[in-house]
Amino acid sequence: MTSEPPLLVALDLAGTFVFGLNGALTAVRTARLDIVGVLALAVITALGGGITRDVLIGAIPPAAFGDWRYLALALGGGVVAFGLSRWLDRLEISIVVLDAVGLSVFAVIGTVKALEFGLGVGPAILLGAISAVGGGTIRDVLIRRIPSVLHSDLYAIPALIAAALTAAAVRTGTYGLPAALGAAAVCFAVRMVGVRFHLNAPGPPGGGGPHRDRGHHQDEGRDDHR
Amino acid sequence: MTSEPPLLVALDLAGTFVFGLNGALTAVRTARLDIVGVLALAVITALGGGITRDVLIGAIPPAAFGDWRYLALALGGGVVAFGLSRWLDRLEISIVVLDAVGLSVFAVIGTVKALEFGLGVGPAILLGAISAVGGGTIRDVLIRRIPSVLHSDLYAIPALIAAALTAAAVRTGTYGLPAALGAAAVCFAVRMVGVRFHLNAPGPPGGGGPHRDRGHHQDEGRDDHR
Amino acid sequence: MTSEPPLLVALDLAGTFVFGLNGALTAVRTARLDIVGVLALAVITALGGGITRDVLIGAIPPAAFGDWRYLALALGGGVVAFGLSRWLDRLEISIVVLDAVGLSVFAVIGTVKALEFGLGVGPAILLGAISAVGGGTIRDVLIRRIPSVLHSDLYAIPALIAAALTAAAVRTGTYGLPAALGAAAVCFAVRMVGVRFHLNAPGPPGGGGPHRDRGHHQDEGRDDHR
Repeated sequence: MTSEPPLLVALDLAGTFVFGLNGALTAVRTARLDIVGVLALAVITALGGGITRDVLIGAIPPAAFGDWRYLALALGGGVVAFGLSRWLDRLEISIVVLDAVGLSVFAVIGTVKALEFGLGVGPAILLGAISAVGGGTIRDVLIRRIPSVLHSDLYAIPALIAAALTAAAVRTGTYGLPAALGAAAVCFAVRMVGVRFHLNAPGPPGGGGPHRDRGHHQDEGRDDHR
Repeated sequence: MTSEPPLLVALDLAGTFVFGLNGALTAVRTARLDIVGVLALAVITALGGGITRDVLIGAIPPAAFGDWRYLALALGGGVVAFGLSRWLDRLEISIVVLDAVGLSVFAVIGTVKALEFGLGVGPAILLGAISAVGGGTIRDVLIRRIPSVLHSDLYAIPALIAAALTAAAVRTGTYGLPAALGAAAVCFAVRMVGVRFHLNAPGPPGGGGPHRDRGHHQDEGRDDHR
Repeated sequence: MTSEPPLLVALDLAGTFVFGLNGALTAVRTARLDIVGVLALAVITALGGGITRDVLIGAIPPAAFGDWRYLALALGGGVVAFGLSRWLDRLEISIVVLDAVGLSVFAVIGTVKALEFGLGVGPAILLGAISAVGGGTIRDVLIRRIPSVLHSDLYAIPALIAAALTAAAVRTGTYGLPAALGAAAVCFAVRMVGVRFHLNAPGPPGGGGPHRDRGHHQDEGRDDHR
């Protein structure tokens, strides 16, 4: 993503690091894996969404393999989370907050990259969202949780909003650092509101509504508050 | 797939729509997801097989991202299933029947596309089957079911038969609309016979046979008859 | 992989066969699938890692689809395991040993192929490990087990060691048949020591350590000793 301004590259790398932290903390807390499993889950969470996007748009090899900083930061996030997991618990640095940061940054950058590779606005928005939620989805499948994107308080929606705002900015020629940060901030804010108030999109009409996420929210709550 | 006759393109689009319906109904009935989860599962079920095929044969970006109608129909199937899920229940439009329609169409079209991209007959048949079963397999993994393709009454076999018939027709120069519809019809019929009589391929010799699919069939039965 | 010496090609094919055996035995013993499920799991276990590697490095179509011997040997391993599963049990040919053979061979060959496609040393090592563990990981996800790579006695570590040794040999110009066999032998030995003594990488500091793999090891133990 050489066409990105330095701050966006920095944010992309920061998102990689926090997704690495996130994946590793999830591995430590939820699945109680050893260090290899923790680092594997850190790398998968941090790089899985972007690699999926790059495969789908034909950016081969994926940026995660062409630029050593991504792999280093994903592993770095994993090592930090592994070593400091008890301390991070005490600081109450939440998996969910870290996840929202990565979600926001990756949605914006993924959309821009998909547009650069010539995809239409609709697919680019979808690919931005895939960049954002892909790594966490693979993480959840591997440790046998229903992926957050399918059930969790406004998870895919903020990513789609940020991707749509980004695509609109690119198409109207107003894309730049302020637009990117604004779109990411909207995503982060919507996600945090969803988490705070346990908002969900509506369930099917007349049905019992979506399961109130009992089992899964207990999981997430546990992650969040430990 | 510009080389396909219009009716086949129409069938491909119809298959996308019914797989979208299928994924969404599965989401509503089995996993009780909210609308975002329902639409996500609709899109994944409808487009997952074709996207996997396109990535493996190098058709990048995948047709599902290059032609807006696929994404629109997948979402449309999801919206219809979400809105009308109670009514669809009453009509007893079965997930399993919809699934068989998509299975049949995608097996034929996936095989043709793989051959067009230069793959041999064996891999093209496999890719036809992957097109057909891929979306449902990803759907099942995401909602934590053992994928139908691994255990269910004649699921992969009809897809492979249709793919083989299609490949034979292409190689003998007799491929056209009648051959495509014929291969799809054979797949649909074999699958429906398998569902009706709960047929399974044989289990390992001397063993207890394959598990009689108790747990999973109850699931599917529930889907089927509600 | 035309640049490989014949013995390495033979080993690659042998690895494909034993991974096919492995996937099929896992399907028979753990999940009790019918023959279609058994063969599907054989093919996925044998070819999944290499296909993932080829997609990520841009080797399209993947070798598994371009060379019929891979698919034939994967299916052959599946058929043998299906037909002889009771006899293989009595011989105590272990899933775990077969798995270690495939792991070793695929780690070496995957690394070489990634380097040939121009990737850097770090990504090439990662892709070698992905080649080695990818098929088994997809297998485990499909039958709903936590993947071995995340928790099992030294599984990813020997693959990474073999990949690193291979990359070092290639970069120092000393790669050849002895280096390849040596790297694979180290991987096999480390893995077998890990299995024998139930070694795991360390858990997070101050925590309860990684779960002592009770549930999963019982599974694997059952596979191993039957």
